Formats: sequence, structure tokens, C-alpha cells
Amino acid sequence: MNDIRRPIGVFDSGVGGLTVVRALRAALPGEDIVYLGDTARVPYGSKSPRTVERYSLACQRFLLDRGVKLVMIACNTASANALDALRAASPVPVIGAVEPGATAALAATRSGDIGVIGTLATVRSGAYERAIAARRPDVRVTAQACPLLVPLAEEGWTDDEIAVAVARRYLGQMLARDQAIDTLVLGCTHYPLLRGVLTATAAEVAGRSVTVVDSATAMAEAARQILSPPPNGRAAPGRLELHATDTSRLDELAARFLGEAPTGFELVDL
Amino acid sequence: MNDIRRPIGVFDSGVGGLTVVRALRAALPGEDIVYLGDTARVPYGSKSPRTVERYSLACQRFLLDRGVKLVMIACNTASANALDALRAASPVPVIGAVEPGATAALAATRSGDIGVIGTLATVRSGAYERAIAARRPDVRVTAQACPLLVPLAEEGWTDDEIAVAVARRYLGQMLARDQAIDTLVLGCTHYPLLRGVLTATAAEVAGRSVTVVDSATAMAEAARQILSPPPNGRAAPGRLELHATDTSRLDELAARFLGEAPTGFELVDL
Repeated sequence: MNDIRRPIGVFDSGVGGLTVVRALRAALPGEDIVYLGDTARVPYGSKSPRTVERYSLACQRFLLDRGVKLVMIACNTASANALDALRAASPVPVIGAVEPGATAALAATRSGDIGVIGTLATVRSGAYERAIAARRPDVRVTAQACPLLVPLAEEGWTDDEIAVAVARRYLGQMLARDQAIDTLVLGCTHYPLLRGVLTATAAEVAGRSVTVVDSATAMAEAARQILSPPPNGRAAPGRLELHATDTSRLDELAARFLGEAPTGFELVDL
Repeated sequence: MNDIRRPIGVFDSGVGGLTVVRALRAALPGEDIVYLGDTARVPYGSKSPRTVERYSLACQRFLLDRGVKLVMIACNTASANALDALRAASPVPVIGAVEPGATAALAATRSGDIGVIGTLATVRSGAYERAIAARRPDVRVTAQACPLLVPLAEEGWTDDEIAVAVARRYLGQMLARDQAIDTLVLGCTHYPLLRGVLTATAAEVAGRSVTVVDSATAMAEAARQILSPPPNGRAAPGRLELHATDTSRLDELAARFLGEAPTGFELVDL
């Protein structure tokens, strides 16, 4: 399947999912993309599975109504809590963040000990543990909720003594439970902004190098495997259409995650 | 006015508003209280005025449908962005958080220089500046958004080196703009949990003692002024009815703000 005239749909609880858009545009430059950030109800990470599922279904409905050929759940919390419901409700394929992230982590680990950091809701769901156990039951997974990392990334305090102190506390708690962790999954779209401090601090706390993986690149690769290249490869770069449910700080934050100035968001009411 | 059979309604974006319930129960022990925390859409503080107003109106509608005789907006962000709309839509009196907080700050300041800390949306609204200027145009107000304080309070990291480093950075930014600040308004229901570290750090950064005020007590006092005591003062303590729009972490967080174990929340869909 691949109708190049139909866009890929990407949704996230906020603007962090633009890291997935960025990876997708690098991997599949000819594809049109429709993005929805549910910024009026962000964050999902502190909410219950029922609420996350309800909001995620509304986001997917919006994308399906725009004729997307593929739905990508950039939000780890939504992937962890609502993937089955989203797949059941979608006539097109749905790619979540957890499975590609789990696959990338399994490719990286040597010790068979993987650490996952994410929101409260992602960690509570046990989704990474399940995705990894389904592929490699012998691998040990330790997950740590890190509620302060999202506001740190949004403040832009990504490389200073407060970021280091927060990273030390969270990663220290995780490594105290499993000393052999050699791979760390950034299980939240905001965390790549803190990749530098997380990589350095993980190595410092573990006393050896720790491989850090995130799901954005792995998700783009999964999309490339589903979408066979169009028969006549299109030369023109695809269009990017941005939607959000609230306007606050959109452009400022979006530029940070997308890696370029966004073209402007259209406000929608779900 | 005071029909003791009708409850007081209190709403907040989450559970932080239980600090207001606590003050209200101390000031008016015989009154029944209906509380609504919009935990499915928390936080309001990072959202636009339009979205905050829409969500606040839905919360107030819920309380009015339950026959409340008075609406109290425990959430500073909602008070700062939606007070006029809420008053226009309510047949009963509406007490916000900003005006009582401003009054308390004016009573405390000697230098005439007041600092306000709150969410992004509260600070951007300029509501404290307006409320203070309307009473004392000669007083200077400096406001500072502190997005990390809410997750710090929710993590329970309220008295350690990370809390101190974060408080130092925010209060340092504020005091760099006005060295004469002698009064600090905690313009968010979560901040009283950090009162110790904020008080100590403000004094340290300013180089002298700074009076810290919050709006919970001032709001309870404003309610007492509106509600004349019932003709036959009721002996029995009033009932507290708790509602929330999402269940995640409710009981754990609620106990921290209420100062006692909550009686259980009823889940509602707005």
C-alpha cells in the first residue's frame, strides 16, 4: 500500500511529538504529514488509562477524518495505554511508540538489562515490559517515572546543575534496582531534548557507558517498512500541516522539537 | 444571605485547591462543601486564556447544577483568566483567588514592592498587577512564572537541594528585577507545600526577611464576609463532597493538600 496523495497522520498530547515528525521527514521526505498536538489537554502522562484512551481516540478520529493512510502515535503515554483501542478503531495501520522503542533497545543491549524512563502513566502501564518480554523473555526491564523531565525540557533547562541533579536522582533510583543496565530508553517525546545530560549522567551513575535510544527514529523506520515507496518517487518535499487544540507557547516550543520554525498551527476543537 | 442547607462550591484544575477547602473548613466549619478538581485536564497553568475560560465555565456549571450558594475559584490560573466570564455566568457570588491574595499582600508589604509567583498563564494574565493597582497604584509588582514548582510539589521533593536550586533560580530572577521586594504571594494552590523552602530561599536571595502570603486563608476570610452566620449556628460539622474528572493519583495527592485522608472522590465527566 502507498497512495502518495494521502498523508501520514501523527498525534501527540502536545508538541513533543514533532521529534517524530522530524525523523519521519528525514526518512520519507516525499510524504505529506498531518500533525495534531492535543495541547489543550496536555500532559497525558499524569492521567488515568481511561482518560488517556478517551483523548487518544478523539485525536485519531480527527486524523482519520482527514484521510490519513497511517496513524502514528508519537506520544508514549498514549501508545502505552491506548494502542489496542486505537488499532481496533482504525481502518488504517497504527504505529505506536513503545514497540519500535522496545525493538531499538533490544538491538542495543549486551547485558540484557534495559532501563526505561517515561511519564507516570507510561511506567504504570507496564507496556515496555510487555513489549520486550514478548520478544525476549530473558531480558530484564526496569522502568522509572520522571515527572520533572518534561517541565525541565520545556523551561529549556536542559544542560545545567538542576538538570544534572534531577537526572542523578531519577537514574540513581533506577540503577539502584538493576546495576547491570546498559541501555536506556527515552520513553517520552520530550526527553530527546535532555539527551546530553541523560547520557552523561547515566554513564556517571552506572560507572560505565550506557546506550541511549529513543523511539522517534525507530518509529520512522517502522513507517518506511509499511509504506512501500511510491511507483514514481515524488521529487517535491511533502507538505506538513500542523494542528493543535490550544495555542499557548506553541511556536516557541514547537521550534525546539521540530528543529526548525513551524509553518503555523491551525487551532481545532476536538 | 445564607441558606445553611445549600453547599459552598469550590473548583480547581486539580487537587491543589484542597488547600482552600482546608482553610474554609477551619473558618466556616458548619458549611457543606462540594469540591470539583478537573484532574482530566490539569494543569490549566500552561494553557491559553480561551481554553482556561472554557474549562472553568464547565467546572462552574457543574457546581451550579448542584445548587451551590457561592462559587470559589481555588485555581489562580482560572481566577486570573476567567473571573469576569465566571461572574457573568453565575447567579450566585463568585470569589476568585487573585483579589484576596492581592489584599493580603497589600496588608503585609512595608516597602511597597510585592513579588508574585505563579503559573505561566497566571503571570501572563497580569491579574495580580491589575488587582493591586486598583487598590494601591503606588505599589510595584513583579511576577515570575515558576513551571517547575508544581511537579516538584507533586513529587514531594519539597525540602531538598533540588527544591532549593529551583527556588533560587526563580526567586533570583524575580529579585534581580526588583531588589526591594518584601512580600511574596504564592499565586498557585500547589505552592503552600513548598512554603518552607520558598520562605527560606526568598530571605537568602533578598538578604532580608520576606513575608510569604497565600490566598487560601484570604479566600476563606472573603467567604466568611459574604456568608452571614446562620440564625441558629449549626453544631454538626459540614459535609465535604469530592468530585474529580480523572482518578490518577487522586488519594495520594489529595491527602497532601487537604491535610487529612480524603473521603473518596466521585468521578464525573464534564
